[in-house]
Amino acid sequence: MSFYPPRRTLMGPGPSDVNPRITNAMARPTIGHLDPAFIELMEQLKGLLQYAFQTDNALTLPVSAPGSAGMETCFVNLMQPGDKAIICQNGVFGGRMKENVTRLGGEAVMVEDEWGTAVDLDKVRQAIAEHPDARVLAFVHAETSTGVRSDAEALCRLASEAGMLSIMDTVTGLGGIEVAVDAWGADAVYSGSQKCLSCTPGLSPVTISERAAEVIRSRTHPVQSWFLDLNLVMGYWGGGESGGGKRAYHHTAPINALYGLHEALTILKEEGLEASFARHRLNHEALKAGLEAIGLSLVVAEADRLPQLNLVSVPEAVDEAAVRSMLLNDYNLEIGAGLGALAGKVWRIGLMGYASNPTNVRLCLGALQHALVAQGLNVNGAVRAADAVYTAAGI
Amino acid sequence: MSFYPPRRTLMGPGPSDVNPRITNAMARPTIGHLDPAFIELMEQLKGLLQYAFQTDNALTLPVSAPGSAGMETCFVNLMQPGDKAIICQNGVFGGRMKENVTRLGGEAVMVEDEWGTAVDLDKVRQAIAEHPDARVLAFVHAETSTGVRSDAEALCRLASEAGMLSIMDTVTGLGGIEVAVDAWGADAVYSGSQKCLSCTPGLSPVTISERAAEVIRSRTHPVQSWFLDLNLVMGYWGGGESGGGKRAYHHTAPINALYGLHEALTILKEEGLEASFARHRLNHEALKAGLEAIGLSLVVAEADRLPQLNLVSVPEAVDEAAVRSMLLNDYNLEIGAGLGALAGKVWRIGLMGYASNPTNVRLCLGALQHALVAQGLNVNGAVRAADAVYTAAGI
Repeated sequence: MSFYPPRRTLMGPGPSDVNPRITNAMARPTIGHLDPAFIELMEQLKGLLQYAFQTDNALTLPVSAPGSAGMETCFVNLMQPGDKAIICQNGVFGGRMKENVTRLGGEAVMVEDEWGTAVDLDKVRQAIAEHPDARVLAFVHAETSTGVRSDAEALCRLASEAGMLSIMDTVTGLGGIEVAVDAWGADAVYSGSQKCLSCTPGLSPVTISERAAEVIRSRTHPVQSWFLDLNLVMGYWGGGESGGGKRAYHHTAPINALYGLHEALTILKEEGLEASFARHRLNHEALKAGLEAIGLSLVVAEADRLPQLNLVSVPEAVDEAAVRSMLLNDYNLEIGAGLGALAGKVWRIGLMGYASNPTNVRLCLGALQHALVAQGLNVNGAVRAADAVYTAAGI
Repeated sequence: MSFYPPRRTLMGPGPSDVNPRITNAMARPTIGHLDPAFIELMEQLKGLLQYAFQTDNALTLPVSAPGSAGMETCFVNLMQPGDKAIICQNGVFGGRMKENVTRLGGEAVMVEDEWGTAVDLDKVRQAIAEHPDARVLAFVHAETSTGVRSDAEALCRLASEAGMLSIMDTVTGLGGIEVAVDAWGADAVYSGSQKCLSCTPGLSPVTISERAAEVIRSRTHPVQSWFLDLNLVMGYWGGGESGGGKRAYHHTAPINALYGLHEALTILKEEGLEASFARHRLNHEALKAGLEAIGLSLVVAEADRLPQLNLVSVPEAVDEAAVRSMLLNDYNLEIGAGLGALAGKVWRIGLMGYASNPTNVRLCLGALQHALVAQGLNVNGAVRAADAVYTAAGI
C-alpha cells in the first residue's frame, strides 16, 4: 500500500519544512547522469553552491549522501593515517568528528567546551601552541545539537596562521547565517540540504579550497573510501586540475534529489543571502519575545545564538516529552528534543529556511502556550509578544 | 532559474524510466526522521525489501546513498584490515570491489574472466583451493557494464562450503531476475534503486545474513567509515541484537527518497516477482528479435544474458556515438555506451523495471533502425519482428 505521510510543520533541528517548489522540482522526469542536459544542471548547481558558500572554489559540489557523509568526505580526503587534528567539541558533532579522525588512523586532540557555549578561542590557541604539528583544525560553525554559533572567521584564521587546514561543519548554518568561505579562508566546508536550504534530506554541499584540493591531489596514501574519494569525484563534477573537461562516470548521481537542491538554491538566490539572514534574525526575535512572555528562556548566551535553532530550557515540573507529543498530535508540529548531555533538559526549536516565517512562529508559540497550560502553568500572551516584534519591524 | 529537464526515455544501464507513481510519492510532504509515522514507513520498507530480496534477514535496509556506497558498506563491514577476499572480475564492478578491499587494508585475490562472459566456477574453485584462508568471496550477479548474469546460487554455495562469506552485487538484478538471498545462502547483498526497481537513483538496498551480522557485531577493529558502520546504522534501522527497539539517531535519513523507494517496492509487490521476471524476459525476447532483424547481434552468450540489459555489438563502419546522439536528439531516447574495454564497441540497451514494456521496445527498435539507415545501412523490419514475439505471447 502506498504511504501517505501526515502533513507536519517541521520546527525541529531539521529536516525543516520543504518549500513545495522543491518537491515539485524533484518530481520532474528523471534523466541520465551523463545526459548533456544534466551536465548543464551540474554546472548551474556548482554556481549556485558557490553563491551560497560565498566562494570561488572550483571544487564545490553536493556529496550524494547526507551531511554525515559530507563530514566524512572532508576528513578522509584532507587527512592521512598518522595525521593529527585538533577538534573543537561543544556538542554532539565534535564527537563525531573525533570518530572520523580515529577511524581513518589519525590522532584527535580534543578542545572541549561546555555544550551550549561557543568554542573558546583561547583554548584553541593553546592547543595549537601545544600541537604545532597538527595538520587540521576542525570545528562546528553552527552546532545542531545546541543552537550555538562559534566564531568561524577567527577559527579559520587561527588555522591558517598555524599552517593548518580548517574543516568547518556548517550543516545548520548555510543559508541561515553568514557563511563566507573565501573571506574567512576556510579550507573544507560541508553542509546539509535539509536545514536552512529547506530541501529534503540526503545531500551534503561541500566546498574545498584550492590549497586543500592540492593536498588531496598530492596524497601518498589513497583515500580510504572509494565512494567519497574526491580525486575520483572531481572526474565527474570537475574541480580537478583538468576542471571542466570530460565527465567520467564515478557513481550514479541522485538525479531527482539534485533537481530539488537546484531549486532550493535558486530560491535562496532569488531572495538573496542578506535578506535570508535578516528574515532568520527577525523570526528568531519574534519567537524569543513570545517564549519569554510565557516564561521560557533561551539557554545559549545572546552573542552565540543561532537564530535558526533555538535551545529552550524546559521549566522544572514540565514533562518535556509530553509537551512534544501534544504538539505533534494536536498541532502536527514537530520540535526537537535535547541530544546527549542535554536530553530531557531542552527543546530545540528550528526556524530554518522556508520554515522561518511568522505563521510558524505564531503556530509554535500558541501550541507551546497551550501545552504549558495543559501542564498546569498559568501563562499567556505568547503570540501577542511575537506580533509586537513584527509590528515594530513594520510587517 | 528553475531547471526543467527534457523528457527522455531511459533505456541505458540505469537510471531507468521512473514510474510517475514514484516521483509523485517523493513529492509528498517531508516529515521528521524520528516521526512515529516515519518509523512505520521504515518498518514497511524493511518488509518490502525482504520480499524483493526473498529473505528473512533482520538486517535489511536501504543505505542512504547510491549503489557504490552499498558496495562499500558490505566490504568495510564484513572485512577487517589484513583480511583476504577472492574477487571475481568480469566487468567494471569487480575492479571496483578490488579497490574497496585494498583501501580497507585487505588483500584482494582476483579471479578474472573476459568481459562479456560469466564468472567461471572452475576458476573460483581453484582460487578457493589456493586461498582457503580468504574470508570473503565477492562477485557480481548482474554485471551492469556487460549485461552478464553469473551463477549466483553456485557461487554462494562455493563460498559457504569453504566457510567464506559471500558478497553479491546485484545492483542491476533486483526486481528484474531471480534474487533468492535466503535460498542461495548469500551473506551480504547490495542493489540500487534506479535499475529494475525503477526508482530514482540515490539509494542502495542492502541485506545481511545473520551469520554476517554476527561477524559485524563481533569486529575487533572499528569499521573505517562512520557513515556506513552497520553497527551504528542498526541502532536506527533495527536488525541488531536488540532489533526493533528504540531508534537512535545516526544520520538524517533521506525521507522523500525513501517515500519513492517504498512506492517502487509497493509496485513490485503488486505485480509480483514472478510476473516481473516474466515481463523482463518477454520484452528482452521482443527486443532481441527486432535487433536481429536489422542485423544487430547480442554479445553475451544466450545462457548468460541479462534480459534487463542487452549488450549489442556495434557493426563495422557504424559510428556508435553518432547513433546514440541521433537517438537522444531526435527521439529523446537514451541508450548506454560501452564502458572500459568495451567502449566504442557496444551499446547497452536497458529494459529495466517500468521501462521494460512493448512501447519502449518499439520506440528503441524504430529509432535504431532509422539511425542505421542514416548511417547507410539497408535494414528494415525491426518493429515487425518484435511484434511477432508479442503476438506469439498473446499480447
